[in-house]
Amino acid sequence: MKILPKSIEELIDGISSLPGIGPKSASRIAFFLLRAPKELSDNLSTAITQARDGVKLCKECYHYSDEEICPICSSDERDKSVIMLVEDALDLLAIEKTGDFEGVYFVLGGILSPMNGIGPDEIRLKELLDRLKKSKSKSKEIELIIGLNPNMEGESTALYIQKEIDANKDLRGKVKITKLARGLSSGADIDYLDEYTIRKAFEGRSAL
Amino acid sequence: MKILPKSIEELIDGISSLPGIGPKSASRIAFFLLRAPKELSDNLSTAITQARDGVKLCKECYHYSDEEICPICSSDERDKSVIMLVEDALDLLAIEKTGDFEGVYFVLGGILSPMNGIGPDEIRLKELLDRLKKSKSKSKEIELIIGLNPNMEGESTALYIQKEIDANKDLRGKVKITKLARGLSSGADIDYLDEYTIRKAFEGRSAL
Repeated sequence: MKILPKSIEELIDGISSLPGIGPKSASRIAFFLLRAPKELSDNLSTAITQARDGVKLCKECYHYSDEEICPICSSDERDKSVIMLVEDALDLLAIEKTGDFEGVYFVLGGILSPMNGIGPDEIRLKELLDRLKKSKSKSKEIELIIGLNPNMEGESTALYIQKEIDANKDLRGKVKITKLARGLSSGADIDYLDEYTIRKAFEGRSAL
Repeated sequence: MKILPKSIEELIDGISSLPGIGPKSASRIAFFLLRAPKELSDNLSTAITQARDGVKLCKECYHYSDEEICPICSSDERDKSVIMLVEDALDLLAIEKTGDFEGVYFVLGGILSPMNGIGPDEIRLKELLDRLKKSKSKSKEIELIIGLNPNMEGESTALYIQKEIDANKDLRGKVKITKLARGLSSGADIDYLDEYTIRKAFEGRSAL
């Protein structure tokens, strides 16, 4: 017996397809939307469409933006010769939240992952090289900080980018590549950490 | 510096207002929607509106339905003289999933909670009494199974309903009130329980 109207089943299916939401939470959210003031569900429905249709990508860094160039890239206070490479906008937001970084970003839009069929053409590798070429006109050396996730895919993507830069006559020797430090995260329990993290922390130890 | 377009901020705010979703998950979901195929976000937006606009409430039990009378209430295989009282559609679905209940439901649409300003007029108490009066025409005694969450509010709502039935000359002595056995752990949410617990509670129901 079909005990739910088709439109509710479709709503639950739609919500289930979102990341981190199982079928149970999806039902809860669906019934919440049905009971909540109509304004709330209308607003959410509109917000989804508007964000999707209205938002552009910054032409410099590919972060989401209302304008052609995002506020970070167009700011006079940001150092354009220091570029932090991030995988996606969530990582950008997390780094920006520290308030410590005064350079600009480049959103790669993914990470090399042959297993998942993501090769150099599926991410913004060409766009990154173009961006670096444009930046080189200034006298200063460009610093590219690798801010990719510290896992195998992040590291092989970084190596691939390094090779591409070395193989490019316009960029070779003009771009200093650095990466975020590896080590103990704040509040970590050493006895719960994996050997790899501890090894990295040991290798990168510094004077007290 | 505003590092996110207004439309994305509104989308994240909208998603944060859903139950069980914190600001971090909301951002993840928002960026997922921005990157996913446009069809997916369009479908979700439409599903929200359609479920909201298209769905009716069954005139007998107040469960969501495409028709005037829902499939459960209009089925010949369901025993109309056994009515399970539930707080909302999620509880109905959880009980229905056991496959053991062959009666019909009544969705109260809430629970008495003076602390939250929910009194008898805010839930479908009058409608429940009307439904019981309509059911009494048959020769058999009506059984009303209290399937409300096993907490203080659920129990006081049950007691309140019992008093109302006893005080009503059309219903007094005609309705046998039972409740699900306390196989349910105190403070649990029915829609999160496993089917076995719900089945045991159904089998062990006792006179109120």
